[in-house]
Amino acid sequence: MHDPKAIAEAYLDVWNEADASRRSSKLERGWSPHAQYVDPMMQALDRDHINAMIETARGHFPGHAFALDGKPDGHSNFVRFSWILAAPSGPPVLRGTDVVRLARDGLIEDVIGFVDETHDG
Amino acid sequence: MHDPKAIAEAYLDVWNEADASRRSSKLERGWSPHAQYVDPMMQALDRDHINAMIETARGHFPGHAFALDGKPDGHSNFVRFSWILAAPSGPPVLRGTDVVRLARDGLIEDVIGFVDETHDG
Repeated sequence: MHDPKAIAEAYLDVWNEADASRRSSKLERGWSPHAQYVDPMMQALDRDHINAMIETARGHFPGHAFALDGKPDGHSNFVRFSWILAAPSGPPVLRGTDVVRLARDGLIEDVIGFVDETHDG
Repeated sequence: MHDPKAIAEAYLDVWNEADASRRSSKLERGWSPHAQYVDPMMQALDRDHINAMIETARGHFPGHAFALDGKPDGHSNFVRFSWILAAPSGPPVLRGTDVVRLARDGLIEDVIGFVDETHDG
């Protein structure tokens, strides 16, 4: 059994990494080469495209950061957690829940992302 | 794009079907032959085993029924919805959220189930 909290924190740390090269290293440590990501706005089919996708997504929310919301849970090779996206000391602009599937080696293989709440403008 | 509410309602209708043979017909209409199911308590690897698994699960909660909780959502080939399990006019004994992946033909291919709340005893 994997540690859902550790997986969720490492996952959000990748999203919060501003430097594309450091983010690439973090993806290499924690994600399968052919990892897949899909949410209502975006999808990407391998680690390099996921890195580029995160770069683009971060560009829409300059200075914002993702934080864990509530307690991650999981079973078998799945982890689920909710998150908040906000500017420093700002209110959440986005809340979501992600479901992560881990490969046998413990690397992230699949992410299915859902949006729980948007606070636009 | 599939109709998340229709998928969720058909899904819960399968769980609420007391008759194994009628449940098998409903599974054949809505689920892939090699559909997979996994939650924190159970897993099953094809439609027949899923039918048997539901029979066993229903045996733990005689007279109870599943009802949709909130609004199902979805994107690409995924649907997410929350549910409540309760006896007639009783309080919920279990709440959960399921993530369903549909095959290209619209049949359910994968279910990842999560428990949100238990109310034991």
